[in-house]
Amino acid sequence: MKLTPKGMRDIDAERMLVREDATEKIRGIFRSYGYRPLETPAMEYLDTLRAKAGEEVEKQIFVIEGNEYGLRFDLTVPLARYAANKEVPKPYKRYAIERVWRKEEPQRGRFREFYQADVDIIGSSSMRCEAELLTLAKKVCSEFGFDRPRILLNNRRILDAIADSLGISEKRNDIFRTLDKLDKIGEAEVERILDAMLGEKAAELLSIVRAKGDNKEKLALAAKYSPEGAAELEEITRLCDFDTSIDLFLVRGLGYYTGPVFEVKLSEDIGTVIAGGRYDDLLGVYGQGSPATGISVGIERLMTLMMERREAEKKTRTSVLVAAVQPEFYSKAAEIASVLRSRGICCETDLNERNLRKQFDYANSLSIPHVLVVGGKEIESGRYTLRDMSSGSEEMLSTEEIAERLGSA
Amino acid sequence: MKLTPKGMRDIDAERMLVREDATEKIRGIFRSYGYRPLETPAMEYLDTLRAKAGEEVEKQIFVIEGNEYGLRFDLTVPLARYAANKEVPKPYKRYAIERVWRKEEPQRGRFREFYQADVDIIGSSSMRCEAELLTLAKKVCSEFGFDRPRILLNNRRILDAIADSLGISEKRNDIFRTLDKLDKIGEAEVERILDAMLGEKAAELLSIVRAKGDNKEKLALAAKYSPEGAAELEEITRLCDFDTSIDLFLVRGLGYYTGPVFEVKLSEDIGTVIAGGRYDDLLGVYGQGSPATGISVGIERLMTLMMERREAEKKTRTSVLVAAVQPEFYSKAAEIASVLRSRGICCETDLNERNLRKQFDYANSLSIPHVLVVGGKEIESGRYTLRDMSSGSEEMLSTEEIAERLGSA
Repeated sequence: MKLTPKGMRDIDAERMLVREDATEKIRGIFRSYGYRPLETPAMEYLDTLRAKAGEEVEKQIFVIEGNEYGLRFDLTVPLARYAANKEVPKPYKRYAIERVWRKEEPQRGRFREFYQADVDIIGSSSMRCEAELLTLAKKVCSEFGFDRPRILLNNRRILDAIADSLGISEKRNDIFRTLDKLDKIGEAEVERILDAMLGEKAAELLSIVRAKGDNKEKLALAAKYSPEGAAELEEITRLCDFDTSIDLFLVRGLGYYTGPVFEVKLSEDIGTVIAGGRYDDLLGVYGQGSPATGISVGIERLMTLMMERREAEKKTRTSVLVAAVQPEFYSKAAEIASVLRSRGICCETDLNERNLRKQFDYANSLSIPHVLVVGGKEIESGRYTLRDMSSGSEEMLSTEEIAERLGSA
Repeated sequence: MKLTPKGMRDIDAERMLVREDATEKIRGIFRSYGYRPLETPAMEYLDTLRAKAGEEVEKQIFVIEGNEYGLRFDLTVPLARYAANKEVPKPYKRYAIERVWRKEEPQRGRFREFYQADVDIIGSSSMRCEAELLTLAKKVCSEFGFDRPRILLNNRRILDAIADSLGISEKRNDIFRTLDKLDKIGEAEVERILDAMLGEKAAELLSIVRAKGDNKEKLALAAKYSPEGAAELEEITRLCDFDTSIDLFLVRGLGYYTGPVFEVKLSEDIGTVIAGGRYDDLLGVYGQGSPATGISVGIERLMTLMMERREAEKKTRTSVLVAAVQPEFYSKAAEIASVLRSRGICCETDLNERNLRKQFDYANSLSIPHVLVVGGKEIESGRYTLRDMSSGSEEMLSTEEIAERLGSA
């Protein structure tokens, strides 16, 4: 019998405990800014999905038999469908940490089923939104131990204006798609493709988007093409009390972006972990139009980083196995476990009616740090042997003392 | 444009905040017993799903185009598939709180996409497992405010033995399915169907399974048919330090149960919120066989109860809107918000560049309990006006005082 579908996987306890921690951490940050959760179904009408999928993504939709529904490939389309058809106080600030599905060719570290963690703001054109999203992104980085992320900023309005001025705007989508591949295919290959596509205009385009300089110089250059676009970026940088870098090369691949776009990188080799942008025209496709902007946190990548950094892998949250020496002491062991649980301590008892040696083996196999031995002598005295499984040291303690010891651990 | 697929729904903030609370609560209980999370893909090979779906459920599978995969209809089949093919320390105790999909005709309160919250124990035949699962179920009830749940117990081995002794075991599955419909169709209808199916044996069967008496009397009756089955139930009741009721009428519909089965009811009209049983033969279908037992918590029903009981509906977790009187004070408002967030307080600033009146309206529309007014006078003095939105009372406080006030709220 075959196990899991192609490009999918089972996530076992070790990774799931990290996922749950990461999710709680990110959700706590989202909530602290007043974002509210929305859950939408895993499947949407195919029409809804196809309206804004774009050619490449459309092929990746898992279609449900009957050809009416498909599994969602992102969380932005369902949000747009919802918000364009619902009366909610504006701005509508929502978060979602959910699975999406794409029928891509599986690659190392990329799967056909994965999580996205999105926050979006519907109903405001103000650059305060972008500043809040970037502040939040920076907070996510620092919560995960990365204090100096690189935050890159650009504006689709500037890119559009440059394409206009060069007379190449009808090839805009192809150009943007190519620029966006920089990280994947490298600068030389981007140059080669653009040369083939645009001839001599390619060099001109590249000389603009690759211009060196600080933010002020880049904004001055950008303002020659799109004063409004440059002013928006200037306002965002002013509202953020941390460093951001204008990068006129930055595109973000998705077709629906209309304004500022951003990317957050932790380091050169890790690549982008948070990205997003403004998509003022998307909601109108599904109903009542409204300005909108948002970011997506690469939770899978953050989890991988968390796992790499953990020195000791916690396979369990169980603090103690309460082990009965003889079967007749099991009820007492279960009773002690119950008291410890009521004090917030995770613990287990032996469900296999095994001898003490085998119970010790079980605790070791799951890295449970303590075993509490419950035997006749112990029950009589009301003091039980607490064994530290890594040092092997043992102490006789009352239930109360054990709860205090493990509760503060 | 159509909105959500048939029988599915968007879950907005009000219900989602309850879902998140309910999930955290239940997960905390699962963890306290040492259960560990496992996540499996939303889709499985159709072969895997069909191996144990049963006729009725098989028709309800959402099949993916290409006819190779389908969406899972429960969490037990993926668990069995995983555990039968993976070396894990035994007992393997896992929890999962996940979505499943069934293409049923939608009814009031039943959806085609819904959550299950399961705990299962793989690798032990001991009745200690059943006792732990029921203890855990009772804990879930009390955490949700239900201190006296009715816990019903039966054993498939007893039902099998009764059917054997009556010479009707070849119709066993049909009989069990009929008994299981008691809550849905009522006792008279069950009787009518069994009469048609079994003739005079129907009355005999019903007189056994409906026999009155306390646990001891019912166990004595059951032991006439299956001494082992009765002994198992006797052991479970002995290991539980709370009341349970033997109910020989109890079946639990699923075809794969082989031993003790249980149901937890909060009251007559709410019906079953937690249910489960032993399925020792299921893993062998997928690989290495192993004894197994588990329960499923009806999280959707618990959420509905939580929502009904809440007096004030919290639409948001935001404690305070930090409102700038003039646009030039926005940066100061954002800075104060940032300080409050670092103290664990959820707060928002105005992302729409609106006047103070409109900011008050926004706070009211989301039931945000406080607005902090940031104006020129306030910035100069370092003391800001904190308005209680329900009483209308106002106080001038320093950032530190505000953090203390709202942090302890």
